[in-house]
Formats: sequence, C-alpha cells, structure tokens
Amino acid sequence: MTRVFAPAAAPPSVVLTREESHHLARVLRASVGDAVIVFNGKGREWGGRIATASASATVVDLVGTREPLREPGVRVVLGVALLKGDQMDAVVRDATALGVSAIQPLTTAHVALPDEARRARSIERWERVAIAAAKQCGRAVVPAIHPMAPIAAAMSASACEATVMCVEPSTGGEGSVAAVPRVGSALVLVGPEGGWSSDEVAHATAAGARMIALGPRTLRAELAPAVALSALWTVWGWP
Amino acid sequence: MTRVFAPAAAPPSVVLTREESHHLARVLRASVGDAVIVFNGKGREWGGRIATASASATVVDLVGTREPLREPGVRVVLGVALLKGDQMDAVVRDATALGVSAIQPLTTAHVALPDEARRARSIERWERVAIAAAKQCGRAVVPAIHPMAPIAAAMSASACEATVMCVEPSTGGEGSVAAVPRVGSALVLVGPEGGWSSDEVAHATAAGARMIALGPRTLRAELAPAVALSALWTVWGWP
Repeated sequence: MTRVFAPAAAPPSVVLTREESHHLARVLRASVGDAVIVFNGKGREWGGRIATASASATVVDLVGTREPLREPGVRVVLGVALLKGDQMDAVVRDATALGVSAIQPLTTAHVALPDEARRARSIERWERVAIAAAKQCGRAVVPAIHPMAPIAAAMSASACEATVMCVEPSTGGEGSVAAVPRVGSALVLVGPEGGWSSDEVAHATAAGARMIALGPRTLRAELAPAVALSALWTVWGWP
Repeated sequence: MTRVFAPAAAPPSVVLTREESHHLARVLRASVGDAVIVFNGKGREWGGRIATASASATVVDLVGTREPLREPGVRVVLGVALLKGDQMDAVVRDATALGVSAIQPLTTAHVALPDEARRARSIERWERVAIAAAKQCGRAVVPAIHPMAPIAAAMSASACEATVMCVEPSTGGEGSVAAVPRVGSALVLVGPEGGWSSDEVAHATAAGARMIALGPRTLRAELAPAVALSALWTVWGWP
C-alpha cells in the first residue's frame, strides 16, 4: 500500500505537504477514499484514508494506529566521507534500508567542505532521499542527516558508546568484524575513495575506535557502507 | 597500479585484445616502459611492462609472477533474478567485489526469458562489467556469467553443496543467516523485485534450500545480493 510521509501527522487528520500532495494526486493518481499508510518519520504510523485529493493540500483521515516496523536494537550513526555526484544518494538510500538512525556526512583530508549554499542543497536532497527510502523499505523512521563535519568533531558529537572504523585491509592493525561487541549505539565510519589519511586513522585510534577490514578486496566507497552495515547486523543480530 | 585483463597471458609476453589495447593506449595514455599488472581472470597475475603501445595491439612483457589476492574459501554462485535496465550491472559489479565465483542470472515466474539475441548481448555486457570490477577490486579471478536459467535448472546445474534462498521476512519459515553452516560451495539465491513465487519457494525448499531473511525491512532487489553476500561472509569468515 502507498506510504505517505507526514511529519506533523496527528489524529484525526493531516494536511499533507505540497510535495506529498502532488506526488499522491498527480503521480500516483490517488482519489478520495483510497487507503494509504501515513508515517511521521519518528516511528509512528497510521492507517489513512484520503478525505480531499488535491495537488497542493491533500487531506488524509487517520483511521487507526498501526504497529510500525521494529527498529534495530543498536542505534547506528553512519559517518560517511562525502562522495561525488549521486553516489551519496545511493549511500543514504541503502543506509536507510539498512536501519541506521542517522547519517553523518564527513569532510576528510581528501574531501573538503563545500560552500554553505551547496551544503544546504545537499542536506535537503539527502533528506528527500531518506524519506523516499523509508517509504520503500517500510520504516516508520527517517534517519536524520547531520551537518557535514570533520571526523574529530563527528566523533565528539556522536554521543555513541562505540566507534567502528572501516579501513583497507592493507592498513594493518584491523580486526575482524565478527569480534565487534554489541553495544547500545555505535558510530560506524566509512572512508572516501582515496581512503582515510594517516592522521584520521591515528585520531580515531587514539579516541578508542575499533578498526575493521571487510575482506581483502577493494570496495567502491559507494558500496562499503552497505557491506559494513550488513556485516555488523549479522554480528549484532538482524535487525 | 593499472590492472590489465589478458585471458591468454603467458610469459614471456602477451598481445592485449583490441579493447584492452585501446583503453591502455588511448584512455589511460600509457607509454612504452610503463609498469602494469596483468591478470588472466582465472587466478594468475604478473608484473608487466609495456613493450609496444598501440591502440589495436599493445604488447606487454611479463616480468614476473605476482601473488594474487586470495580467493574466498567458499565457492559461491550468486543466483540472481533478472533485474531491469542497468540494475544487473550493479549486481554483477558488487558481487565481483564481494568474491563470488560465478553469477547465475535467473528467469522467474515474475521475469521471463528475453529473446536469444538480447540474452547474448546481456551476457557479454555483464562479462565486461565483471572484468572491470575485477580490475577495480584487485581480484585475479573474473566470475563466470552463466546462461540464464529458471531456478530449478539452476539448482540442478550448480553442483554446489548447499543452497541458501533469501526471502522476504513475511514468508515465514525463514531462519537466521548466522545459523547457515560454512560449506565448500553454495548457491545463494536472491529474488526479483516482486519476490519469489510460492512455486519457486516450494521447489527450493523441497530441494533442500535453506531460507534466510535479512531483517524486517524491504530491500531493493539491486541491494539484496550485496547484503546477502556480506552477511554470509561475516558468518563464514571474510573473505
């Protein structure tokens, strides 16, 4: 059934945003009386029925709460080095379907901070990607997109119990993902195309991060987050 | 260092195919004397030096054997339902970087067999994608692309010790990936966008396949193979 994102949803009914209204009425051609699922992106979900179909302000009656998909027992923040073009879209989409709580875009020694206007546009874009992915994968939670930050600031700000840093197998000192203990919250760091700088690895190590490698093959930066998350959920228990 | 695919490589030197020659000479602008790595796609690798640079027939002297990247201890055949457009390219690329031995494209109840000319074009295209992915990820092995087949034929032909079928969590009867025993060879089945038909699940079950689900969220068909492979390597040991 069609899933509709409505951050302000509260019974008895909700007026959808212009974007959601347009998508429902024009793209999906929904009509009055159609049943939908409404989720607020913060873990709540309702059965809904379209009361007024309009491309600018569709109204949905909330006809009963629904049990949302269960969220993972570990709160994971994915700290991911900025990637070029639409590669970040793929990372945000995959990470949402793989249950992360938040995505922390990282500036690194190899990838500098874009200017402010571009940063704002990127964050908005990734928020839209995360919403679309939550609709598709069935989650009632939309991961937050944090402001871009360098790794040291991201580690201090994350308030996670543990940090796991994915490194190339050649780095040395990396351990097995199977040995990563289950914690309540974890910051999972995945590097840029050129890898982490030695300063970044040294900083993370000194701050207590656990280094892991995921096989001897070089993973594309776009694929590495999905591989790391899949491996960690397998160790910690799906979801 | 640039990795060059030469299936017929044998000391003392090899003449590259037109495609590899063109890529080296025109795209990468390599010159006589440049060092490259030559791999034959079947697990052998050499240090090489360009003897004649030409867009049609570059000659590379093989100056010594190299230790290839180690291959996984489990021979995995990825049986993947045909996906639309370039989604199969992404699956082939990711599966190559995640160490599969072969890729078995599957026709299913939801995805019919394309005509012969189209099948041949697709297989050639995926072979090129697998070669490019092997270059990128550092493998000396290029996974074979098997001819398209329905699931029953693929299971009989696979000659694998075990079959693992990835199913939606709603199917019921699915187990934990963590309980999948390590074997010498495994056929890993990942379904199409619409999921497996009940006949396909029944056939696989009757033939002894182990059903697994990867969390409660719906994974895009394009992402599911990478998630399944990452989970299985984590259980079996990377690589």
